[in-house]
Amino acid sequence: MSVVHRFNGKPNDYRWEGVKVREYDDEFEGVTRQVFIGPDEDSNNFHMRYFHLEPGMHSNLERHPHEHGVLILHGKAKVQLNDEFFDVHPNDAIFISGNDLHQFVATGDQPLGFLCVIKAK
Amino acid sequence: MSVVHRFNGKPNDYRWEGVKVREYDDEFEGVTRQVFIGPDEDSNNFHMRYFHLEPGMHSNLERHPHEHGVLILHGKAKVQLNDEFFDVHPNDAIFISGNDLHQFVATGDQPLGFLCVIKAK
Repeated sequence: MSVVHRFNGKPNDYRWEGVKVREYDDEFEGVTRQVFIGPDEDSNNFHMRYFHLEPGMHSNLERHPHEHGVLILHGKAKVQLNDEFFDVHPNDAIFISGNDLHQFVATGDQPLGFLCVIKAK
Repeated sequence: MSVVHRFNGKPNDYRWEGVKVREYDDEFEGVTRQVFIGPDEDSNNFHMRYFHLEPGMHSNLERHPHEHGVLILHGKAKVQLNDEFFDVHPNDAIFISGNDLHQFVATGDQPLGFLCVIKAK
């Protein structure tokens, strides 16, 4: 069923009505994930997730067959794509091909927030 | 291959390096589309498109089997989902199920910009 999730967050801390904030432990404390279009919405082909990283935090350095489509929403990041590094800013778009090594690091003094699209499982 | 498309637009008129702006004719003059992650990036599972509508313009009123995932980026819209209407604002998220009738109208006095995700063909 179609659904509207209204934004009820702040400029550097996005939240949506009806969307759960999921926290990570250990090495990734300070990182949260919100799946605002996903299994709960019966989205059968793709999922849309918002990741929030406190300054200095990083995502997992990983390589996997599925692709990512990313749009930076707030803050700054250093992005690793295989052996290259890019400084990215709000509204920059990044496509990560399957099996390319990648990692996001929240640089700057404000939290990093980005949209990350993946295919549905 | 992974790619970074750097944002080089303005607050109400988004553009990205290396991404073509596609215009529409006739009824949809004043609407543009930019596929910033799509076939050119070899995105095999989903496409990410930015739609820009001048104030008062609208998208096609349509119903089709494929789903849409939408994030409002700037401006205001009235969204029709079947027989319901919603006023939406920046950062509101909308999931449109397959076969639900839908249309976006740019309300307010600034252009409407939204991200729309679809499965790849």
